Amino acid sequence: MLSKNSIKHINSLNLNKFRNRNKLFVAEGPKIVGELLRSPFDVESVYAVGKWIKKNKSITEKTEITEISEQELKRISSLKAPNQVLAVVNIPDTKTDNDSLKNELVLVLDDINDPGNLGTIIRTADWFGVRYVVCSNNTVDAYNPKVIQATMGSFIRVKTIYTDLNKFFTNLSFTPPVFGALLKGKNIFKMELPSEGFIIIGNESKGISGNLKQFITHPVMIPSFAQIESAESLNASVATSIILAEFRRQQF
Amino acid sequence: MLSKNSIKHINSLNLNKFRNRNKLFVAEGPKIVGELLRSPFDVESVYAVGKWIKKNKSITEKTEITEISEQELKRISSLKAPNQVLAVVNIPDTKTDNDSLKNELVLVLDDINDPGNLGTIIRTADWFGVRYVVCSNNTVDAYNPKVIQATMGSFIRVKTIYTDLNKFFTNLSFTPPVFGALLKGKNIFKMELPSEGFIIIGNESKGISGNLKQFITHPVMIPSFAQIESAESLNASVATSIILAEFRRQQF
Repeated sequence: MLSKNSIKHINSLNLNKFRNRNKLFVAEGPKIVGELLRSPFDVESVYAVGKWIKKNKSITEKTEITEISEQELKRISSLKAPNQVLAVVNIPDTKTDNDSLKNELVLVLDDINDPGNLGTIIRTADWFGVRYVVCSNNTVDAYNPKVIQATMGSFIRVKTIYTDLNKFFTNLSFTPPVFGALLKGKNIFKMELPSEGFIIIGNESKGISGNLKQFITHPVMIPSFAQIESAESLNASVATSIILAEFRRQQF
Repeated sequence: MLSKNSIKHINSLNLNKFRNRNKLFVAEGPKIVGELLRSPFDVESVYAVGKWIKKNKSITEKTEITEISEQELKRISSLKAPNQVLAVVNIPDTKTDNDSLKNELVLVLDDINDPGNLGTIIRTADWFGVRYVVCSNNTVDAYNPKVIQATMGSFIRVKTIYTDLNKFFTNLSFTPPVFGALLKGKNIFKMELPSEGFIIIGNESKGISGNLKQFITHPVMIPSFAQIESAESLNASVATSIILAEFRRQQF
């Protein structure tokens, strides 16, 4: 049974304000919750239908579980099609020393707005072995439920770090190559790309902010192959994916 | 002024049933509506705030325009942030002779479900000069408002053709190379790719259906570069984009 207070508490976690206050977020569905329970993440509580509970006895021994009906799941889920299980999870502390970014290929996101885009970028980063995503403070919150669901569980493996990007670059103790996706960059398919460095991706409509451009050492662009007229730009998560794929292809 | 009937009519076009019945769809925002009015599409009517109307006298001479308030725009818009203008547009007849696909790089979508994915795929196709996207009958409708908005106007240049894919491949009068994105395909970065051919992309969770696999002549996959564990798959529009980029990169 679900109390009214539980319902209110869980739904409140849809909002950034309450996630920050409680240091908690929500993840849903058998795939993501299953992965979470096998991960170092600290799952506070799980709400699931009987069918899921029966199947997952082995991974839920140490977790507080509440059996709920499909109807109750609907009242706490933020999915169109609620899917068996919902977990309330502690937001981990991610104090990352900037030095640990030294030998890595790092994504830097400058005000990515759309939760679907951020989630997809984290999922793609995971696929291509990128372990750190540095986000501007105005980037949509990585623990927003839409972001979490779009990552398909990749938030478990990819660390997101929120910071003032201007200060971040100014205070870096090393000088990595910094690639920036710009409409007037150099054709990325004609460049020799390193295995380490930073890649800045700009906001969906405004691109990379003026005051960050000074840190770019290698402006890059993805050439359009249309003959006459074409799209003016690519979706931010698509551009990120094509750039990451090209970095990794060259190392392969 | 907007009549109650107009509001009802426009909102009804959010549903496939009414789009099909009326052969009409809705597009929103200055960028997309501006492009539409300069395109061969037959725009039936435009609803816009005064500011937009003043600015766009030159492209709206032949179109029926209704001036509305921001409040009225909210009542007919399906956007979170309605943006100045909404157009009701005739769905064009797209009878495409299969022979016109012969010397083209063609995308084939097998039950893409998510409107955002389809819109993003059409936008990326446009960027890479792909002119035809053949969709299974169960693929989300290309005139769904969420698809239209995610294309950022690229639906104007990229033709979508809905058909029974099994029959489509069986009846093709020529034999193109058919690439299929499969988890167990050949590393696409190690293949020599042609400038023409078909690329099949499967459903977001089920992949390419069993009965379509027989038509694939070249199974391909995008290698993961993660060291230990990683994402199990890529988002459908991301996978499509990386594959298209690789086809075009090799031609460049």
